[in-house]
Amino acid sequence: MFNAKVKSEILKDIIDIISPLVNEIKLNITSKGISIRAVDPAHVAMVDLEVKSNAFEEFKAKEMELGIDMDKLGSIMRLSTAGDMVSLEYDNDANRLTVRIGNLVRKMGLIDTAGMPDPKMPSLNLPAKVVLKSSEISRGVRASESISDHLALSVNKDTFELFAEGDTDTVNLKLPKDLLVDINAPSKCKSLFSIDYFSNMIKPVKSDNPLTIHLGNDNPIQVEFDIADKKGHVTYLLAPRIESE
Amino acid sequence: MFNAKVKSEILKDIIDIISPLVNEIKLNITSKGISIRAVDPAHVAMVDLEVKSNAFEEFKAKEMELGIDMDKLGSIMRLSTAGDMVSLEYDNDANRLTVRIGNLVRKMGLIDTAGMPDPKMPSLNLPAKVVLKSSEISRGVRASESISDHLALSVNKDTFELFAEGDTDTVNLKLPKDLLVDINAPSKCKSLFSIDYFSNMIKPVKSDNPLTIHLGNDNPIQVEFDIADKKGHVTYLLAPRIESE
Amino acid sequence: MFNAKVKSEILKDIIDIISPLVNEIKLNITSKGISIRAVDPAHVAMVDLEVKSNAFEEFKAKEMELGIDMDKLGSIMRLSTAGDMVSLEYDNDANRLTVRIGNLVRKMGLIDTAGMPDPKMPSLNLPAKVVLKSSEISRGVRASESISDHLALSVNKDTFELFAEGDTDTVNLKLPKDLLVDINAPSKCKSLFSIDYFSNMIKPVKSDNPLTIHLGNDNPIQVEFDIADKKGHVTYLLAPRIESE
Repeated sequence: MFNAKVKSEILKDIIDIISPLVNEIKLNITSKGISIRAVDPAHVAMVDLEVKSNAFEEFKAKEMELGIDMDKLGSIMRLSTAGDMVSLEYDNDANRLTVRIGNLVRKMGLIDTAGMPDPKMPSLNLPAKVVLKSSEISRGVRASESISDHLALSVNKDTFELFAEGDTDTVNLKLPKDLLVDINAPSKCKSLFSIDYFSNMIKPVKSDNPLTIHLGNDNPIQVEFDIADKKGHVTYLLAPRIESE
Repeated sequence: MFNAKVKSEILKDIIDIISPLVNEIKLNITSKGISIRAVDPAHVAMVDLEVKSNAFEEFKAKEMELGIDMDKLGSIMRLSTAGDMVSLEYDNDANRLTVRIGNLVRKMGLIDTAGMPDPKMPSLNLPAKVVLKSSEISRGVRASESISDHLALSVNKDTFELFAEGDTDTVNLKLPKDLLVDINAPSKCKSLFSIDYFSNMIKPVKSDNPLTIHLGNDNPIQVEFDIADKKGHVTYLLAPRIESE
Repeated sequence: MFNAKVKSEILKDIIDIISPLVNEIKLNITSKGISIRAVDPAHVAMVDLEVKSNAFEEFKAKEMELGIDMDKLGSIMRLSTAGDMVSLEYDNDANRLTVRIGNLVRKMGLIDTAGMPDPKMPSLNLPAKVVLKSSEISRGVRASESISDHLALSVNKDTFELFAEGDTDTVNLKLPKDLLVDINAPSKCKSLFSIDYFSNMIKPVKSDNPLTIHLGNDNPIQVEFDIADKKGHVTYLLAPRIESE
């Protein structure tokens, strides 16, 4: 049983976060809320998203799983406008999700979740932690996209740095302590990442929203931020690229 | 003889209404105004449009026909901005239409109307009538586009309904009496239509503009609405699709 | 040595002016400011642009030349938003241009200027001169684009005229004295030009900015306007097309 009502903005945010990474997902539902954990097809990135029941206007659910095509849900949500309230209800007989927006009733076929993996969140020991507004690094990421396919992120005592290098060009963004919300780095840490993946991770974050980054040395990066008015939380993991030189 | 001056918005509305259906049309001109009646190349839909002379700022005309390429007229009208006044004058010697927008004089070649048909408006007996704002159904039509190529429209005593069905998905929009301007259905009527055609018919209608729909059982639909500040009127006819099952 | 700080709008204007004509340019730098003179690959048009040092917030330079890829500089400038201040510094050791926007440091490889020509500005005797706002002719140019690939510009005593002719269609724009800022034509002058080139020349001009046009009979056209708050100036030359009939 699943019967919920939620602001269209929250559903749209979830779609913006998940769909650049993976299209077919398993939506885990309990009485406490919903969650999604998925790995991208290339096994480079993982996303873990949860939204508590109190982020919904109404929420009644028993434990269950729904297989959702994010592209399809996205095309349905494009029918809603800001401020619309959206109802979601599981139709047990037809195995479909009924989405109601105003007078519109849209029944959506579900995907079989049988083959879908239950990825485990690896336990990582990432020594450095930086908290910043996503707007502070988005320019650096966009600048890097036009000269390379990977970028380096590094932290030392009081500076967070982004660096990318092309054949003749370089991008460098240094954020000193006063431009960061928080920084904590016992030692210098540096890792290399795919720009495409990293860009997709920070794009859905509202520009004023603080982003928490955990970084190690040639280790995955962990990016976290709140959604749904702090009643939801997203954690991304992205594997490092190994420097060839 | 044809010499008229009109707000650019009215000409743009006419182009938006006619050009999704048919590109080359015969513009019928009399001393009382202008009219267009055309059938789409696949003979699935007909449009009948008339604009009275008092919708124009100036209007002097004797009975005549002009063969117009709507795409070309559309590209000319894109040179105008809201509030522009547009002059139209038939140049008899060169057989061209002179379009004036500000200081710009644009002479447009005309098409030979000799081969163009004069479609007759079939007399239909469609028992049900619904009046509604186009904004009430546009979401249902857009939702249907992504799951099927045809939709069913039905009316019973006090409800207008739109229904579309894909392989696993459905769209249903029920509009009860209180969301309609008017409804009059002696019996339940239901017909199936191409979504593309129906969508093109309701798209040019301003969202607050009332739309009158006449419907029968497996019969064409007739859609009517006013344009040009009620000094013009549009009637569409769309043939039904026969349900294969 | 080159070290300057400038409003991003001024750099963006320079890119909009130069890049439709030519991509790889030689930026000439002296203590008095910067200048670019370039001919398009087809040798049909020339642009001469100069911006004085007082258009910059800061400007320190010795005479030098930088080979710039305008597309690349354009993609860097798209990272800036209105009101951003941009620093430019020549990095002598690495032969790169360092562009700073906020905390972002973008080092850009330079092109070898060795093979680049130093085009000379031909001395032309163009009898007619018209000064007008670019907004007055932009509609005529856009209208011409859809019916032909060349247009005629002509001046007589007190009228500036634009004319284009397609197979069946014509465009005519007549600007009498009262719609012009200034006109001075000792005799009637008329020349024919490529619409693409002429359109690219007037597009970057802000709509209220006066444009000075010098015209002859079957002769090149010279178009001039100020940029950078009158601390910069642009001169275009465009070769005429010879009427085939």
